[in-house]
Amino acid sequence: MSLPRNVKPPVFNEITGAIRALAMDAVQQANSGHPGAPLGMAEIAEVLWRRHLKHNPANPRWADRDRFVLSNGHGSMLLYALLHLTGYDLPIEEIKRFRQLHSRTPGHPEYGYAPGVETTTGPLGQGVTNAVGMALAEKVLAAEFNRPGHEVVDHRTWVFLGDGCLMEGISHEACSLAGTWGLGKLTAFYDDNDISIDGHVSGWFTDDTPKRFEAYGWQVIRDVQGHDPAAIEAAIEQAKANTTQPTLICCKTVIGAGSPNKQGSHDVHGAPLGAAEIAATREHIGWNHAPFEIPADVYAAWNARDKGAAGEAEWNARFAAYHAAHPELAAEFERRMAGELPADWNAHVEAVLAKVIDKAETIATRKASQNSIEAYAPVLPELIGGSADLAGSNLTLWSGAKGVSRETGGNYVYYGVREFGMAAIANGLSLHGGLIPYTATFLMFSEYARNALRMAALMKLRQVFVFTHDSIGLGEDGPTHQPVEQIATLRLIPGMDVWRPCDTVESAVAWAHAIERRNGPSSLCFSRQNLPFQARSAQQVADIRRGGYVLSEAAGGEPKAVILATGSEVALAVAAQKALAEEGIPVRVVSLPSTNVFDRQDAAYKAAVLPTGVPRVAVEAGVTDYWRKYVGAVDSAQGVVIGIDRFGESAPAGELFKHFGITAEAVAGAVRQVLAR
Amino acid sequence: MSLPRNVKPPVFNEITGAIRALAMDAVQQANSGHPGAPLGMAEIAEVLWRRHLKHNPANPRWADRDRFVLSNGHGSMLLYALLHLTGYDLPIEEIKRFRQLHSRTPGHPEYGYAPGVETTTGPLGQGVTNAVGMALAEKVLAAEFNRPGHEVVDHRTWVFLGDGCLMEGISHEACSLAGTWGLGKLTAFYDDNDISIDGHVSGWFTDDTPKRFEAYGWQVIRDVQGHDPAAIEAAIEQAKANTTQPTLICCKTVIGAGSPNKQGSHDVHGAPLGAAEIAATREHIGWNHAPFEIPADVYAAWNARDKGAAGEAEWNARFAAYHAAHPELAAEFERRMAGELPADWNAHVEAVLAKVIDKAETIATRKASQNSIEAYAPVLPELIGGSADLAGSNLTLWSGAKGVSRETGGNYVYYGVREFGMAAIANGLSLHGGLIPYTATFLMFSEYARNALRMAALMKLRQVFVFTHDSIGLGEDGPTHQPVEQIATLRLIPGMDVWRPCDTVESAVAWAHAIERRNGPSSLCFSRQNLPFQARSAQQVADIRRGGYVLSEAAGGEPKAVILATGSEVALAVAAQKALAEEGIPVRVVSLPSTNVFDRQDAAYKAAVLPTGVPRVAVEAGVTDYWRKYVGAVDSAQGVVIGIDRFGESAPAGELFKHFGITAEAVAGAVRQVLAR
Repeated sequence: MSLPRNVKPPVFNEITGAIRALAMDAVQQANSGHPGAPLGMAEIAEVLWRRHLKHNPANPRWADRDRFVLSNGHGSMLLYALLHLTGYDLPIEEIKRFRQLHSRTPGHPEYGYAPGVETTTGPLGQGVTNAVGMALAEKVLAAEFNRPGHEVVDHRTWVFLGDGCLMEGISHEACSLAGTWGLGKLTAFYDDNDISIDGHVSGWFTDDTPKRFEAYGWQVIRDVQGHDPAAIEAAIEQAKANTTQPTLICCKTVIGAGSPNKQGSHDVHGAPLGAAEIAATREHIGWNHAPFEIPADVYAAWNARDKGAAGEAEWNARFAAYHAAHPELAAEFERRMAGELPADWNAHVEAVLAKVIDKAETIATRKASQNSIEAYAPVLPELIGGSADLAGSNLTLWSGAKGVSRETGGNYVYYGVREFGMAAIANGLSLHGGLIPYTATFLMFSEYARNALRMAALMKLRQVFVFTHDSIGLGEDGPTHQPVEQIATLRLIPGMDVWRPCDTVESAVAWAHAIERRNGPSSLCFSRQNLPFQARSAQQVADIRRGGYVLSEAAGGEPKAVILATGSEVALAVAAQKALAEEGIPVRVVSLPSTNVFDRQDAAYKAAVLPTGVPRVAVEAGVTDYWRKYVGAVDSAQGVVIGIDRFGESAPAGELFKHFGITAEAVAGAVRQVLAR
Repeated sequence: MSLPRNVKPPVFNEITGAIRALAMDAVQQANSGHPGAPLGMAEIAEVLWRRHLKHNPANPRWADRDRFVLSNGHGSMLLYALLHLTGYDLPIEEIKRFRQLHSRTPGHPEYGYAPGVETTTGPLGQGVTNAVGMALAEKVLAAEFNRPGHEVVDHRTWVFLGDGCLMEGISHEACSLAGTWGLGKLTAFYDDNDISIDGHVSGWFTDDTPKRFEAYGWQVIRDVQGHDPAAIEAAIEQAKANTTQPTLICCKTVIGAGSPNKQGSHDVHGAPLGAAEIAATREHIGWNHAPFEIPADVYAAWNARDKGAAGEAEWNARFAAYHAAHPELAAEFERRMAGELPADWNAHVEAVLAKVIDKAETIATRKASQNSIEAYAPVLPELIGGSADLAGSNLTLWSGAKGVSRETGGNYVYYGVREFGMAAIANGLSLHGGLIPYTATFLMFSEYARNALRMAALMKLRQVFVFTHDSIGLGEDGPTHQPVEQIATLRLIPGMDVWRPCDTVESAVAWAHAIERRNGPSSLCFSRQNLPFQARSAQQVADIRRGGYVLSEAAGGEPKAVILATGSEVALAVAAQKALAEEGIPVRVVSLPSTNVFDRQDAAYKAAVLPTGVPRVAVEAGVTDYWRKYVGAVDSAQGVVIGIDRFGESAPAGELFKHFGITAEAVAGAVRQVLAR
């Protein structure tokens, strides 16, 4: 097969040969995987990783390391080969177990599995977006922590990406922002090989990509020969020299380069080469070693442990000088990078809560959310907020908010109308360390960001997603903007904590819980409209953190029924309880601000809140199916759910609640109904 | 407030004044809405709608009308004003009831409410993407139906869009494809007013948009004075003259133009102007009429009914000539535009099913899906397929598939790696009429397209979404690619029919049902791995269309339990049934390929399938909460769900099913467990 266009073929050697061999042999052994990218990007990887990448394989958590992101994550064997060869704790046995259960080398790079994997990639376009977030984190932290003569935050972010990433819409959102912010330490290598899974991209991808990126304000280096180390080296130097623009290096490559009969075609993208072609490739690239055997001199040529240790030692010395000159800043930097909250955090939260309870305000929970930010942010400089062009609606600004710009750092990001990009950039901010991002949009548009929310949960990131306008209560904007199924679907993401607070107190607790949670993201869903304050005992306030609790006990006897409610419907439940009490029917009201958190409580607590055998009625202005896990099957007599199983309508909010039957009367009626069965 | 940059101010007159007055008065009366866009785009709208748009207000369904899409859907009053003024059946009473319950003028334009609304817009970026689909439909249908001298398909698609649409990633996906396809009859007007909700866009949107669109292969007309009718006119003529490229007309405008004190600021974007400013605006634009009063001469100047009737009559005459020359083609065109299936459709489906049953193949359901396409597509020329760069994995190509290209029409679209754009383009294809789109990606990446799927359901579009690799059964690609919560969350979209067939027969029925369904979309979820054929009686085959049915009755007595299963887990249920039968425990197996369809059946049928009081066990390789609606509450003794409430892993599929406990043994064990309670 001839090489496409004017691509200069590789000059094969054992250094790049090691990458090619490990990749093709591991894919073959797994009988699945993607050899195309590792073979096609071997020279780019070699130049970057051996000559430029600042890292220490012995300490993958070194704060000032460069970040490397393989946005074309299907090419995972490229990354695993690099980690193995440069001396990370990823022995050859793990390479041999590529794509096997419990290996550290899963099919796509998974954050937390192999050391040195900075983010989970595979869903296309999100890796480069994470990288934009990492580079933004570096910029923000450098602005905050560096002092004259003390550049303790000074590292680069490198990304590999392919045609797939560039076709995805999220690449537009992220790269537009990277240009606006002037992220000069961000460099992306475009593996321009003309091939995607369906074949030659000319039928579906005819963008002038360099021109597109110039339109974003990037430095674009065109027509770089991607198999020519000297050309790659020159491009990297040019990227480094430009400190005010991110750089896209457009590398002309051949997919699967080195495979004499399959290179340059989509056959080499996502399937093993096969024994015959592997033999031919060995011959072609001059690799005379058995599978998974790397000569000692090749290992030595790749090993980065000495250089890495020296680099980190040099930084440690610089950090010690910084510590001496600015002890408080240095201590703060260490706290932040360790992900520890301030020592007085718990006391601060208690004080905030006491004030909120004392004020007993009836306000929209989106306003309560803003008050929470205003209360917590002054002691949490790691909080970095933002909204997708809805700051005034999401109420995410606070008095100390300072917008990030091309010129300055800050603690608030104007993301523009880019929900998916926002969420995935925030994933990058969280992954980088030193920052806790919160982002916001209307709850409906969580859908635009959906897979980035899932990625946050998969990676167990500390992330706060603020979603306002959480129901038909948003009123006139109508069904395109009125969430119905969104809260339920967010709750179904494994590891995502969804909160839907009913008042100022639950809002403040939800925020605190989300900030404290170290092993996963939280989605906080807030109302547009005012919600009444609910009175609680100290124990009830404490129990909010358990996700569900008895908000209002049945008066005048054992409860004959339990009403479960969240958010704006809690007040309806309380009103129904009162009406029923007047009829002599004692009913308990359970507030469930976070069903996910409640489900993690011990069985005894859950049974105490929801006693077995007592009929249940749930009310939430959304789809009813989710609530069947608490109230029982649709065809059973034991429970009723008051909700909305169709799309909303455009009208004032008050009318809509009546129109859809989300009323205290309906709740009371449902209780009577279950009791009459 | 001064006008920004070098924008030439409007010369106000009563023609454009009518738009401005209706918009500001309706928003004021509703006390909510967005006056900024209607005021800022009044001149553009006037030139397009009075001089160029081909439409007949008396017949909004005229097949060869131009399509107009307000992608900045929050500016809905602009569209309502245009529809009202030009003579659509949208009386002034409806304008007065803007944003009120049951009005035809909801907050955002909703398809099916007011005549002339071609698509529901509001979620930014999707309108322009729908428009790309409509323009693609025109191109495809023109190629298929036009004959020399008979240009019966020959209309244009016009879009208004703002900064928000251009920031959204989906605009990249859609506009890249529009350029690749050379959609010369597509024209977009960019309302370049420098303002989004958070304020002046310079802080978060610094793209060189003209350059970006040139990179997509569009004709870009820069720096058009958006309040100057002559400049707009010239730009439209230039757009029309270019038949091989879509055109972006960049209109420099002032948001809220005409509001003397608020124009040019985000204050005018999304809130009523207020009484004082409305009075000042009346004065400023010279509009001396009471709210909702339009002088007769202004109505007359706007009215398009005569011109529209003449235009349609002329086309009818041309169509009659076409009918005479090409009677079969003309009849086919009429059938297709009416959305009727071929007369022999039902018989064809029966014949296909008979063959599938006869073959009794054990294959992956994605392959069964391809076989279904291969069987149905030859009699359904309206089918237009596609995949987001996964044709060979989704198995969406068939022997008669012909790729759409810049040069030709066709029945298959290579969408590239653009899931969201694909789904929203397909919404446009469906909205246009004459075509039934099917699109495909991995089930996981339904998340990238999530809100477009919801929009299809909201608009009740005939659309088939093919989602393959529907569980951990995809194996080595790991958790980023393994659906766990996706099937459940799709089922929660109101109006979406989700199918997860267990074999070739259910796959063929699911496809037929999806094609026949006229009031909403269907998501068909297929396996990567082989699934065994299930034997059925004729009645059982017929009952597949009811979404759920008794696949295998308990042997040896009344069932002591019912096992509910879908897709790849049906075979596990049958194996468990067999094992239990050997122990003397009679168990029924219910296959539920579409819970949504099953839920719509009458109570008697449902009770016959799922008898009350018989314990139930559900099994599905996904989150368990959804199944509680059938098996009962999590803390009740009445049912068990076998599923996966965490993320997947990278490993061979067979190992994963064991690892996650999705096995026949686990199902049998669960039955024993519920019976022991």
